[in-house]
Amino acid sequence: MNVDSNTGSEIQSNDYSLQFRRFLDKPAVESRLLLCALASTTAHVEMLRQTGIVEKESAAAILNALAQLTREERAGNHFLLPVDGDVYEAIDRRLRESIGDDVVLLRKAKSKNDQTATDLRLYLRAEVLKLAQLLLDLRKLLIDLATRDIEVVMPGYTHMQPAEAILLSHWWLMNECRFARDFSRLLELFTRINFLPLGACVMAGSREPIDRDFVARKLGFDGVIQNSLDAVTDRDYQIEFAATASLLGLHLSQLGSELLLWATQEYAFITLPRHLLVHSHTMPFKRNPELLEVLRARPSLIFGRLMEFITELKAVPTGFSQDLQESIPGIADVAETLRLLLELAAGILPGIEPDQLRMKEVACADLVNVGNALDYLLERGVEKNIAVRSLEHLSTYCRTRNKYLSDLSLNEWQRYSPAFEMDIYEHISMEDSIGAYCSFGGSSTEQVELALTRAREALQKDEQRLLEQNTKVPPL
Amino acid sequence: MNVDSNTGSEIQSNDYSLQFRRFLDKPAVESRLLLCALASTTAHVEMLRQTGIVEKESAAAILNALAQLTREERAGNHFLLPVDGDVYEAIDRRLRESIGDDVVLLRKAKSKNDQTATDLRLYLRAEVLKLAQLLLDLRKLLIDLATRDIEVVMPGYTHMQPAEAILLSHWWLMNECRFARDFSRLLELFTRINFLPLGACVMAGSREPIDRDFVARKLGFDGVIQNSLDAVTDRDYQIEFAATASLLGLHLSQLGSELLLWATQEYAFITLPRHLLVHSHTMPFKRNPELLEVLRARPSLIFGRLMEFITELKAVPTGFSQDLQESIPGIADVAETLRLLLELAAGILPGIEPDQLRMKEVACADLVNVGNALDYLLERGVEKNIAVRSLEHLSTYCRTRNKYLSDLSLNEWQRYSPAFEMDIYEHISMEDSIGAYCSFGGSSTEQVELALTRAREALQKDEQRLLEQNTKVPPL
Amino acid sequence: MNVDSNTGSEIQSNDYSLQFRRFLDKPAVESRLLLCALASTTAHVEMLRQTGIVEKESAAAILNALAQLTREERAGNHFLLPVDGDVYEAIDRRLRESIGDDVVLLRKAKSKNDQTATDLRLYLRAEVLKLAQLLLDLRKLLIDLATRDIEVVMPGYTHMQPAEAILLSHWWLMNECRFARDFSRLLELFTRINFLPLGACVMAGSREPIDRDFVARKLGFDGVIQNSLDAVTDRDYQIEFAATASLLGLHLSQLGSELLLWATQEYAFITLPRHLLVHSHTMPFKRNPELLEVLRARPSLIFGRLMEFITELKAVPTGFSQDLQESIPGIADVAETLRLLLELAAGILPGIEPDQLRMKEVACADLVNVGNALDYLLERGVEKNIAVRSLEHLSTYCRTRNKYLSDLSLNEWQRYSPAFEMDIYEHISMEDSIGAYCSFGGSSTEQVELALTRAREALQKDEQRLLEQNTKVPPL
Amino acid sequence: MNVDSNTGSEIQSNDYSLQFRRFLDKPAVESRLLLCALASTTAHVEMLRQTGIVEKESAAAILNALAQLTREERAGNHFLLPVDGDVYEAIDRRLRESIGDDVVLLRKAKSKNDQTATDLRLYLRAEVLKLAQLLLDLRKLLIDLATRDIEVVMPGYTHMQPAEAILLSHWWLMNECRFARDFSRLLELFTRINFLPLGACVMAGSREPIDRDFVARKLGFDGVIQNSLDAVTDRDYQIEFAATASLLGLHLSQLGSELLLWATQEYAFITLPRHLLVHSHTMPFKRNPELLEVLRARPSLIFGRLMEFITELKAVPTGFSQDLQESIPGIADVAETLRLLLELAAGILPGIEPDQLRMKEVACADLVNVGNALDYLLERGVEKNIAVRSLEHLSTYCRTRNKYLSDLSLNEWQRYSPAFEMDIYEHISMEDSIGAYCSFGGSSTEQVELALTRAREALQKDEQRLLEQNTKVPPL
Repeated sequence: MNVDSNTGSEIQSNDYSLQFRRFLDKPAVESRLLLCALASTTAHVEMLRQTGIVEKESAAAILNALAQLTREERAGNHFLLPVDGDVYEAIDRRLRESIGDDVVLLRKAKSKNDQTATDLRLYLRAEVLKLAQLLLDLRKLLIDLATRDIEVVMPGYTHMQPAEAILLSHWWLMNECRFARDFSRLLELFTRINFLPLGACVMAGSREPIDRDFVARKLGFDGVIQNSLDAVTDRDYQIEFAATASLLGLHLSQLGSELLLWATQEYAFITLPRHLLVHSHTMPFKRNPELLEVLRARPSLIFGRLMEFITELKAVPTGFSQDLQESIPGIADVAETLRLLLELAAGILPGIEPDQLRMKEVACADLVNVGNALDYLLERGVEKNIAVRSLEHLSTYCRTRNKYLSDLSLNEWQRYSPAFEMDIYEHISMEDSIGAYCSFGGSSTEQVELALTRAREALQKDEQRLLEQNTKVPPL
Repeated sequence: MNVDSNTGSEIQSNDYSLQFRRFLDKPAVESRLLLCALASTTAHVEMLRQTGIVEKESAAAILNALAQLTREERAGNHFLLPVDGDVYEAIDRRLRESIGDDVVLLRKAKSKNDQTATDLRLYLRAEVLKLAQLLLDLRKLLIDLATRDIEVVMPGYTHMQPAEAILLSHWWLMNECRFARDFSRLLELFTRINFLPLGACVMAGSREPIDRDFVARKLGFDGVIQNSLDAVTDRDYQIEFAATASLLGLHLSQLGSELLLWATQEYAFITLPRHLLVHSHTMPFKRNPELLEVLRARPSLIFGRLMEFITELKAVPTGFSQDLQESIPGIADVAETLRLLLELAAGILPGIEPDQLRMKEVACADLVNVGNALDYLLERGVEKNIAVRSLEHLSTYCRTRNKYLSDLSLNEWQRYSPAFEMDIYEHISMEDSIGAYCSFGGSSTEQVELALTRAREALQKDEQRLLEQNTKVPPL
Repeated sequence: MNVDSNTGSEIQSNDYSLQFRRFLDKPAVESRLLLCALASTTAHVEMLRQTGIVEKESAAAILNALAQLTREERAGNHFLLPVDGDVYEAIDRRLRESIGDDVVLLRKAKSKNDQTATDLRLYLRAEVLKLAQLLLDLRKLLIDLATRDIEVVMPGYTHMQPAEAILLSHWWLMNECRFARDFSRLLELFTRINFLPLGACVMAGSREPIDRDFVARKLGFDGVIQNSLDAVTDRDYQIEFAATASLLGLHLSQLGSELLLWATQEYAFITLPRHLLVHSHTMPFKRNPELLEVLRARPSLIFGRLMEFITELKAVPTGFSQDLQESIPGIADVAETLRLLLELAAGILPGIEPDQLRMKEVACADLVNVGNALDYLLERGVEKNIAVRSLEHLSTYCRTRNKYLSDLSLNEWQRYSPAFEMDIYEHISMEDSIGAYCSFGGSSTEQVELALTRAREALQKDEQRLLEQNTKVPPL
Repeated sequence: MNVDSNTGSEIQSNDYSLQFRRFLDKPAVESRLLLCALASTTAHVEMLRQTGIVEKESAAAILNALAQLTREERAGNHFLLPVDGDVYEAIDRRLRESIGDDVVLLRKAKSKNDQTATDLRLYLRAEVLKLAQLLLDLRKLLIDLATRDIEVVMPGYTHMQPAEAILLSHWWLMNECRFARDFSRLLELFTRINFLPLGACVMAGSREPIDRDFVARKLGFDGVIQNSLDAVTDRDYQIEFAATASLLGLHLSQLGSELLLWATQEYAFITLPRHLLVHSHTMPFKRNPELLEVLRARPSLIFGRLMEFITELKAVPTGFSQDLQESIPGIADVAETLRLLLELAAGILPGIEPDQLRMKEVACADLVNVGNALDYLLERGVEKNIAVRSLEHLSTYCRTRNKYLSDLSLNEWQRYSPAFEMDIYEHISMEDSIGAYCSFGGSSTEQVELALTRAREALQKDEQRLLEQNTKVPPL
């Protein structure tokens, strides 16, 4: 029997070093990692059998034992113990119990270096697909809200000052656009993750006649990583994941942050249902939108993790080292946090009720009409400086008397400029202004309806894209 | 004549606010931004003429004036003055000098909000294409070095301890793999940048019958941004740029960092030519690889900018605001720094001379042969514990006598285990070990030669991909 | 004549490396660094004369030449040229012109390593003192505003929902508390910066009988750095500066961010004077508080620099290296940005006019009275669940009828609970509630007046502390 | 009886929001937080009794119940359940079981806002003191190593190139200097943490005649926070903690990183004992210093958390909000990670064995002697250019013949310059060079011995400083 010396890195944790290993403290994540390790080990042994590197009978025994462990773990009997340095030692321990010394056959043409690299990719690609699904759900939700609110008028802001009246649907769809970009980035990232490191062994490749393509196919990878040094060293995809997650997190935070603003008593644009508010025994009318605060604040965790991963790799030389393992809890943290935040957003959004009256009131508050009135004067040849000053005075007049321009009598108009005549009323209705933004991608009802159609079609295509990736990937 | 009130955001800098604007202190960057503004303004006016929004004659006069300014700026007569709040005020000032009040026609169906968003994309997409070209050059260089060093043997490390002998070519190609990924990310980013915001006006779209597709085609964009709110607000691509730049910067830093190690007297793997070293008058033999230190350190600037951009957008509500402008100097800084670093890497690499003897010496230092000898004993039925102990003693013997395993006589072998026989010599040559890593992507000469072929083909394809994007984009 | 070989690191920039040096692009900063270099060189030469290491006459000639250069630079004749690798080469070049080869005497018992370390501390300590002064100015301003607004009532928020009525003064003073902490941190940092590296030479110390204490006294340092390796390597204070600056920046950003909220039409708590707003020709009533947006956004630059500095030092080994120089532009950037932001805040705050009526209206909106009314019921033995429900209904009644609790007739009160009697009116006045928060540090008028007195005293003490540090430090 | 309506923020978690709360997944940390909450609640109730706000008998019953819960928790019977929203709900639940409705008395003059702020300070100040103690231990260890290695000569580097021979003790002490600064920063931070928020109630202060100083004294605080808004909002100290921890982490990472370098086969400066290495079954001679890699990599987690905390607070308005709670798991993570890293460093350092011969060999490698020889020539009037060239040739000669300058015969010397005479040998011994760096803080044996004395004295003073803080703080 020929033990491959590539397996040299099969390390044995000693008692001292064990305490400085980074445990995840999250049984659910550890269980996923264990299932990844079982899947890659199984595919590897099948390849060893297929290529004749390990005899059929031995291989069969090992595969049986692996299948048994997989069933056990899937059934929720998590078999990682504190004495195990990591999931590999746990598998080793359990296999040795059932197949004895044949456990060393597993190590042929494989090392911890390429296996860890493989299992992390198995773990993360599954997480990425789950997140992509949640993103699709969120986008669907936003499209539904945009469909519902097609008649709700709201103020559009620049510099936090109302500028033009727009449709609330337009705002929902802007959010959908952001998440559609996030979806694209996630799927592109998936195609970079989905390559197989296994077969790189310690880092120079294997001396055995292995078949890496066989393993890649079994595990649903799109191919193998083409340079063995790269295969064990590359962690680009983790940073890219954290960067993609940061953008997605930023969008969720901005959404939460804007909704918090709208939920203030001062804006009073939206109300939240009781179950989304935290209230107190003794101040019954103080209801706190704490969940929106979570949406605003928690993505910061992801930004920090991004910085952690980048810094972790600075000045780390080529080849496997413990530094590359240090990111694992962080990666799991980003994935879990993002999933929670997407679920949170999906839980909050349907409950949000716009106060249509209030929104329209602010939107109509002479935002556009002042501009219209100015145009009116300029078109009638009033000198610009004079026209502007007239409008300033008119506006002060309105504000101090709590009136809108549309409330004014012709008499009042003319007090500020003799150029105003009866047809001024034709220039200042609000409904017109909504219809006016009829350029492609604008906020007119017609344009927003077209945008809704496009959004639904794009969503359908993206569902198809995700489905294709999902079917490639065997379940853990 | 009807002045579009969308132009409302054409702001006038007052003296006080001027001092808190963020100037770039970099005339070359400002000049690029000015050329971007001239290009987008020109395309916009062409569209206004085409759609009849502005009369042919007026449009012709404006286009003439814009062409004149563009020629001037291209010729190096930078016309931005300290009194100008930004490049738009500079263009306004100059146009007013030549075409008078017709300058207001420019503002039709356009605001600073959508124009800034457009010009930043014009600027950044050009930078991205330049960086992509420099990346191709660097990859070509690495492939050339890998071709040159196909016979140089070096130690492969894990945990900074030599593990297996590999080819230096394999290491060069691993670096090439990293930069190939960076290239892909840059091009994908390009496709996300290359959409036109113009036509979103203030943020709700325009009331004029504009033709956004016309402008997109003129400016070489792949299409228009489909939601007007998104068009003026979206800065995702800036964060994505900084994240992509961070990964590329990390790879350059790791390269610099590893070469610094190799350039120490202790490693002594490489020498640098005189012009890449900084030396002193009085300690003539102390030559400092300071440029490699720059390569190691400076990418940190990019990581910090990434964090700046993310934080800058936290809690910024939808719609245009000054916060969105604050990233401009940072974006330019990232682009400039990255260009410098790529040029630096390309300037350093060709000068690096590997010390083949020294590298081989370390690589052969019984790294693999100890493993081979262990296999030998195990195959001959020696019990594992005993075999391991024999090798430990043998190894100590070699080290204390400054010998390699391959130097030992059979007598010396047998002193440590009687199981060693004459055929042990067949198991311990170094050359074999290089050849042994013959799995796909491994470090055997054959595999590395195949990898070289693949790398050259992929490079050619990527050159083609870049060319296609380059031809789409009109020169500034 | 014995040239100290410690001067070995006096490097000579070659043409190639010059282009990868990091230039500051900021003549004002370079000029400061040049003056720092002249100051430390002068003190060093005085010490060399004092200890007899350099003869009196040679020293006198050098000191004359240095004084001449200092005068020139101070007069604004910046003498750094593009051919100079850095400020040291510029000084070298100019000194050689006036004193010839005696320029080498300068290098005795000194290297670029310890001099750079010294000059950066000279530069930064001056910046820190300037920032501390600006902080004092800002604190004084906040105390003045708190004095002015002692009668202005505003809503205090938790979770962005109004909770209790407080005094605007209390809010101003909370901001003052933040900046007072920042001041303390800056001064503590100053005491850590203010130690002299010079005399560490290359990094092992000098072989000459130098007198480091003499130099420290001349330059106003509190002492010398006690370990020569540490003297040339330590950059802790830069990270500490960036961290301190980040907290200060965060406070400025939070201030800007909250004022932006208050300046919305929805809150309408404050108005800004015309010169602090950016307005447009065509939408005269849209005035954009862009300067507040700058205050909110720009501190992100500092956060990014902090991350840059930390990452830059990761894995950099002991001893001088180019990595340590890479932070200089960033340090200058943080100092300049922070100065600008402090000036911006000081420019904005005096112009802010609270809308007392509006603030009071929101503050009185039954926030506290609901709590009071609940207490009233509970004290009268009403069961808690029932009392809470009564108040909920009362509150809905008020909201739908646009009334305050204080507007209700006894009849209306009793409709919701028979336990209400005439004395309920004694429990619900707003003024009482302000007075009620009379615990130490609370928002009662009395407590805020005490807090104002404490703030003024603390400010005076801090002015004294700063004065003491300022007098220690000789002008550049 | 008058229930304080300040207690309004006593919130009741609903089932939905519960799942988005951030649990720590770390029972040990949760238990500490629970003990903090019990301590502050106890001190608060004692104050309520003392001031008569709560009657003596009721107070006694509550205090009994709290004491019982504290004993239980201290004994390891952790009573937090998944149904509890947080530690406060857990205490509420348990108290209600023993004292019934009197549990509402606890809420008098206190809210979750000021209590959370208080408990986090209680938690963190205890962590800071523990970390300070570990820092003292580490500094002691470094001083011991410096004492042990006072005769070990090593090369001092600049730019990773050997520059001068120094003592290993000098290097150990440089590390000690870093950690001494970290200690100072930690203690200064402690004085900023150690102020009491309690009594700020919701955020405006209390209406009851509370005695905040009483509570501060009971809990060992140095005083109370003087502005109630600041008391509930301020989280500066968390960012300052993360920044201080980042610097400390950076120092540990740099230490690990430099020792990893020294542990390479190429440097071969140190060996690590077996229990600090991770080794493999099959490659018995490959021993991996993985624990040093952990020391190098893991501090990145802290840098990321720093960025998280800063970003989390951006744009968060004054007053309590959920955003302020989001940092808790991160704060605990930083504290735990730092403790682990300090223990790891303390576990590794004593095992490190310097290879004195190897270090000396590199240190003597003509680093200093070349400088000496140059001085020799210059002093004898040889023109500088010529002298430098002579030394360059001499150096090449030595290198190619594997000789040191000290090995050369006078004949060989004179081949390169006739100015060399017999006394050249007096200028080139290595021992002299060590002695030569006799300036204050230099690497001469005498100076290092003085430095050792200073370090021991400073350590003693710092032990005293820590003791004083420790005695102030009552145990949890």
